[in-house]
Amino acid sequence: MSKYAIAIHGGAGTILKSIMTPEKENQYTQGLKDAIEVGETILKNNGSSLAAVEAAVRSLENNPLFNAGRGAVFTNDGKNEMDASIMRGDTLEAGAVAGIKNVKNPISLARSIMEKSEHVLMCGEGAAKFAKSINTEFADDSYFFVQARFDQLQEAKKTDGVFLDHSGEANAEDNKQKFGTVGAVALDVQGTIAAATSTGGMTNKKFGRAGDSPIIGSGTYANNKTCAISCTGHGEFFIRAVVAYDISCLMEYKGLNLHDACYEVVNKKLVTFGGEGGLIAIDAKGNIDLSFNSEGMYRASKKEGEALFVGIYK
Amino acid sequence: MSKYAIAIHGGAGTILKSIMTPEKENQYTQGLKDAIEVGETILKNNGSSLAAVEAAVRSLENNPLFNAGRGAVFTNDGKNEMDASIMRGDTLEAGAVAGIKNVKNPISLARSIMEKSEHVLMCGEGAAKFAKSINTEFADDSYFFVQARFDQLQEAKKTDGVFLDHSGEANAEDNKQKFGTVGAVALDVQGTIAAATSTGGMTNKKFGRAGDSPIIGSGTYANNKTCAISCTGHGEFFIRAVVAYDISCLMEYKGLNLHDACYEVVNKKLVTFGGEGGLIAIDAKGNIDLSFNSEGMYRASKKEGEALFVGIYK
Repeated sequence: MSKYAIAIHGGAGTILKSIMTPEKENQYTQGLKDAIEVGETILKNNGSSLAAVEAAVRSLENNPLFNAGRGAVFTNDGKNEMDASIMRGDTLEAGAVAGIKNVKNPISLARSIMEKSEHVLMCGEGAAKFAKSINTEFADDSYFFVQARFDQLQEAKKTDGVFLDHSGEANAEDNKQKFGTVGAVALDVQGTIAAATSTGGMTNKKFGRAGDSPIIGSGTYANNKTCAISCTGHGEFFIRAVVAYDISCLMEYKGLNLHDACYEVVNKKLVTFGGEGGLIAIDAKGNIDLSFNSEGMYRASKKEGEALFVGIYK
Repeated sequence: MSKYAIAIHGGAGTILKSIMTPEKENQYTQGLKDAIEVGETILKNNGSSLAAVEAAVRSLENNPLFNAGRGAVFTNDGKNEMDASIMRGDTLEAGAVAGIKNVKNPISLARSIMEKSEHVLMCGEGAAKFAKSINTEFADDSYFFVQARFDQLQEAKKTDGVFLDHSGEANAEDNKQKFGTVGAVALDVQGTIAAATSTGGMTNKKFGRAGDSPIIGSGTYANNKTCAISCTGHGEFFIRAVVAYDISCLMEYKGLNLHDACYEVVNKKLVTFGGEGGLIAIDAKGNIDLSFNSEGMYRASKKEGEALFVGIYK
């Protein structure tokens, strides 16, 4: 049993070594290491898993490489609309926000919704009003302007495509198969687990579409009795399959362990269903699972007293 | 086994016979009967359970007595913001909308999102744009103006309360305990089940709050292998407990029957958790369960060849 442990992801999809430069690979690896370190420092100092997953996700949100926060992709009308959710496994309290604009760290807003309101989920302009009322940090459009993301939008508009991508360096066809979301799960020394997920959604998205990232039970779930989960993938399928809570139920009701439950959902059910993507999972004993059915998933994990793991490809 | 069957609800909460007039009781009973009849007519003529739940919910949305569609309660800024979701048990396809304004029948928009877009969930202004693009029927503010609802808002504003109510005739304190949502579940002669849920949310609500009604897995779920569920209750608790999918998992993974699974979640887990409300459930054999842990729930059900059941109190 690990006293503390943390795992993160930076999105899944068709991430092929053949189209990655060594420089790009180093940047992604460094971004993942930085996020793990921020979270681990909190856990090492007896901080809560909730604080650790929030901090790790903030680090990923602040990194323009990942499709969340600063690096959020552009919607059809040239905006950045973000979704996030967070949940703690001891009290089952949760917070989530959908379609928020200009908030620097949507994951912190999700935590504030959990802790400073009676609600779990807030959407759009109303959520922005709440954010202002509690002095959440906003950033103007220029902060969210990342040239590679803007180029992706122009590319997507050429074919009227809606891309679930998160990467700027590949071609449009390839981008279709990238699911840009970031997330973290952690166990703290008090024995509590937590999960957090944040995304910029789909390039060229219209109509206020939300995927699974702001949905408790689908994109995010945490329960000390079973597991904490953060998903990344084709959100529509993850919603219909209620992915995060499905893993929890397979453990609670069918007695599967963390690994077997993740394998059942990610590598069997979702494959049959057509839902490409992956997830990170942790249980209260510190077991970690990093499952995906796509070509790759940006991921990293660290258990107390063990070496850091960073992975990109299969 | 029933060839076809349907059940509906019009919200749960502190619905006491002592504060109900015979006239009001008759109106509610008639509203429930009307909605069942609309759905049953479709099922009797070999229509789909999807069409039946949509039609039954439209009937309830068009009735100002219920907190959905026309009878939607007012938000803090005097608007009507509605949420709805729908799911079919054969393909696990689903559609949902959150924070939509001026759409006459949000449940039909949810169905259109399922059938005419690549997405499951759309929010706010973006969802309205989609609705316009497919010629969804809109209605102006006057259609949604119901004096009793407006009076509720003024009452709520006096104390800055946020009411989960749905009824206009009782006092403010009582209103706090009413969960205004409508829903339907049905089995068709092809053996497919479906679920639909629609709500006007909370009186005096702020910040774009959404409850469980637009959340697949929490407020609505349907799977031919297990059950179709539509919930009504204190949405925040229903989201955190992933209520609808929990019942499905108890059936699929633990082997419980429909009734035992509903009892476990509504009368045990939710009671311990503090989540007041109820739900309607159906399985592919035509078994129906109408469970609630509150004082009452507006509800009705009809199985082929059996008498209509209508209930309000415990």
